[in-house]
Amino acid sequence: MLYCVQMDIHVPHDVDRNDFERLKAEEKAVSQKLQREGKWPHIWRVTGRYANVSIFDVADHDELHAILSGLPLFPFMQITVTPLARHPSSIA
Amino acid sequence: MLYCVQMDIHVPHDVDRNDFERLKAEEKAVSQKLQREGKWPHIWRVTGRYANVSIFDVADHDELHAILSGLPLFPFMQITVTPLARHPSSIA
Amino acid sequence: MLYCVQMDIHVPHDVDRNDFERLKAEEKAVSQKLQREGKWPHIWRVTGRYANVSIFDVADHDELHAILSGLPLFPFMQITVTPLARHPSSIA
Amino acid sequence: MLYCVQMDIHVPHDVDRNDFERLKAEEKAVSQKLQREGKWPHIWRVTGRYANVSIFDVADHDELHAILSGLPLFPFMQITVTPLARHPSSIA
Amino acid sequence: MLYCVQMDIHVPHDVDRNDFERLKAEEKAVSQKLQREGKWPHIWRVTGRYANVSIFDVADHDELHAILSGLPLFPFMQITVTPLARHPSSIA
Amino acid sequence: MLYCVQMDIHVPHDVDRNDFERLKAEEKAVSQKLQREGKWPHIWRVTGRYANVSIFDVADHDELHAILSGLPLFPFMQITVTPLARHPSSIA
Amino acid sequence: MLYCVQMDIHVPHDVDRNDFERLKAEEKAVSQKLQREGKWPHIWRVTGRYANVSIFDVADHDELHAILSGLPLFPFMQITVTPLARHPSSIA
Amino acid sequence: MLYCVQMDIHVPHDVDRNDFERLKAEEKAVSQKLQREGKWPHIWRVTGRYANVSIFDVADHDELHAILSGLPLFPFMQITVTPLARHPSSIA
Amino acid sequence: MLYCVQMDIHVPHDVDRNDFERLKAEEKAVSQKLQREGKWPHIWRVTGRYANVSIFDVADHDELHAILSGLPLFPFMQITVTPLARHPSSIA
Amino acid sequence: MLYCVQMDIHVPHDVDRNDFERLKAEEKAVSQKLQREGKWPHIWRVTGRYANVSIFDVADHDELHAILSGLPLFPFMQITVTPLARHPSSIA
Repeated sequence: MLYCVQMDIHVPHDVDRNDFERLKAEEKAVSQKLQREGKWPHIWRVTGRYANVSIFDVADHDELHAILSGLPLFPFMQITVTPLARHPSSIA
Repeated sequence: MLYCVQMDIHVPHDVDRNDFERLKAEEKAVSQKLQREGKWPHIWRVTGRYANVSIFDVADHDELHAILSGLPLFPFMQITVTPLARHPSSIA
Repeated sequence: MLYCVQMDIHVPHDVDRNDFERLKAEEKAVSQKLQREGKWPHIWRVTGRYANVSIFDVADHDELHAILSGLPLFPFMQITVTPLARHPSSIA
Repeated sequence: MLYCVQMDIHVPHDVDRNDFERLKAEEKAVSQKLQREGKWPHIWRVTGRYANVSIFDVADHDELHAILSGLPLFPFMQITVTPLARHPSSIA
Repeated sequence: MLYCVQMDIHVPHDVDRNDFERLKAEEKAVSQKLQREGKWPHIWRVTGRYANVSIFDVADHDELHAILSGLPLFPFMQITVTPLARHPSSIA
Repeated sequence: MLYCVQMDIHVPHDVDRNDFERLKAEEKAVSQKLQREGKWPHIWRVTGRYANVSIFDVADHDELHAILSGLPLFPFMQITVTPLARHPSSIA
Repeated sequence: MLYCVQMDIHVPHDVDRNDFERLKAEEKAVSQKLQREGKWPHIWRVTGRYANVSIFDVADHDELHAILSGLPLFPFMQITVTPLARHPSSIA
Repeated sequence: MLYCVQMDIHVPHDVDRNDFERLKAEEKAVSQKLQREGKWPHIWRVTGRYANVSIFDVADHDELHAILSGLPLFPFMQITVTPLARHPSSIA
Repeated sequence: MLYCVQMDIHVPHDVDRNDFERLKAEEKAVSQKLQREGKWPHIWRVTGRYANVSIFDVADHDELHAILSGLPLFPFMQITVTPLARHPSSIA
Repeated sequence: MLYCVQMDIHVPHDVDRNDFERLKAEEKAVSQKLQREGKWPHIWRVTGRYANVSIFDVADHDELHAILSGLPLFPFMQITVTPLARHPSSIA
């Protein structure tokens, strides 16, 4: 099951910078583990914004929600989820 | 250069159906040619809508615009283009 | 897999009324067949609008897209799809 | 009387975490009590967001407002309420 | 049960004027009948627009939907429905 | 002169609760005084939200602005004002 | 009573040009009559758009609605009305 | 050169009230000086909101920006600027 | 006086193609004449859309409006105008 | 590769003014260095707002993102990026 997920990250100006940098490092580790497992096959930076466009490949909605809500930066994210179906013109 | 492109297609109810079906067939052929050339590496259907999310990999803005504006269904599309940069957490 | 789907129907004022009434009758038959099969467990009218809120229970995104894009009134619909996960407070 | 209610929860980053966890536990208890009473027959998680889609079955607007405004997390919620009428195609 | 309903009317420029004037006359008759019955206790014109703000007092969502969807100008309306509860400061 | 006014109240989570409760009590007293004077003939709760829909009957824009901007909770409100004209179908 | 009114005019591409030019001429005559009477003290063009920003000075909402809904181009307009109160810093 | 400017003022609830009142007094003085000079010929209160609609008459964009960005309450304002051209129907 | 202008062009599907191509040719000629005169120093295509971002350098609002409203494709355009002031960091 | 970038800057009212002024000075230095290098050929002030419209001329999306995300005021900016293609009417 494929999903296109866009995550926009908003950092409050009065957040503790050390705490936030630690969360960012944890986020990177989690993301790379999921990429290696094939569950997060694509992650791209939205040019000019603290945001990404990602493709997830998971078993179902529950697994996607568990992954996204467990991300260390989840409390700072605005997330949109688009379920992706097979396109009739796709040669993949 | 990577771009995320979302195309929403709106078919006026009084369009000539034969003309439109012919354009759809042409669109499919153009899309599959570009997929085979590696310029349109991903195309997914937005579940429940006459729309797609696509990834393009082209030389520059001019090539992307030439491709998109040359699509047979371009006159019926609303298009959003998001330029994609490398994400620091990507393992690709 | 559960999805919340909202369908808003816009009828162009110059559509052929007989054609449209026939499509409506077909839509009703398709909807009731899917309800009986358990794939469309809930359909409610949005009070005051030509629109519905529905719950679908299908195998995956592809099956949902096949159902929705095959509805007789699909060309007149604006559709939003929300994938639903299990809620931790649900007793169901 | 049926209502579709969507609740989006926004947690300020500087809220006291213990207080908030206590409110969450209270919210869960209230929700499950209302589910058992049949007044909150469905609650689903919006995949990827701290939000839910719910169906309420109550006597009238006043009862719904009393329930929603009394939820422990109400001060952190953005809520949309859609009154649901019977759909002519429903077999329920 | 009280509802605040806003109706915005859009008249396509190529509609048949005689047909539309006839619908307007029918609409007025239906509205006044419902006002006399106490089901449509208030109707005000939105200054400067072909729109009204109305209060309905009906048994339930189904009755409101039957009334609104049966209005002769319903096919030309955009409608928003706000269910109204008792306000704790109201002296009514 | 009639106006439809919608007030949405946003309470910052770090406001002093005692101060706010005092303002709420003052707001209620002001509202009821204006209701008794006939200047605020209707106030309804928007079901599920900390908001109201109200009808004001005042001499002119200046009087309405003086009333609204003098409400104790005005600093926490988002307000929309719709001037209401007589509707040609009204039997009032 | 002062009102700020913005009118945006949308001309359908298939409207009869002679009819529309005649309506424009009538609109100009009506506007200039109201300007001379002091009821429409200001009218400015929104630079780059077929739209205007106007100030009206009329007795009440009913008079404003009668004027606006009677404009020859009213069926082609989207209108927003802002009631204007005296500003405490104004020296006028 | 004429411009229509709308200023919406948002006062954070935790701002120092004395500081803010001092800024308001300064704002009023600046506004009245510019009104007397003919550069700010109109200022009206948006009924029911902490906002104004103003007309400015200045030499060019640079002068307008210098005035607006120099207002004591500028840090609390959301501003929209509409450049106004002569309207062909204006008798002014 | 500098202005940033974005023009989005919407071509109705039932427009006469020959008429539209003629208007496009006229539009190009007008645009290039204004570019040569220095009044339209920049015009760029918005990648993927039938739209442009342009910079205009004209005497005042009236001249800009005369230019834009006189463009052959003006009836098909949605236009946004942003007046540009000198930026304090600019080295130009 | 050309991009149109709009940056809107929001300064929280409780930010440390000295820190912010230092960031502004650094921002100006970075901007002017990039202007001198030809990578930021245009920067204009949006009249009446703390915002700019800029044109960037860089090698690719990655370079643009590195520049924008490295700006000292980036944490306070809302940024929109529009990739610009060559316009067929351009004489440049």
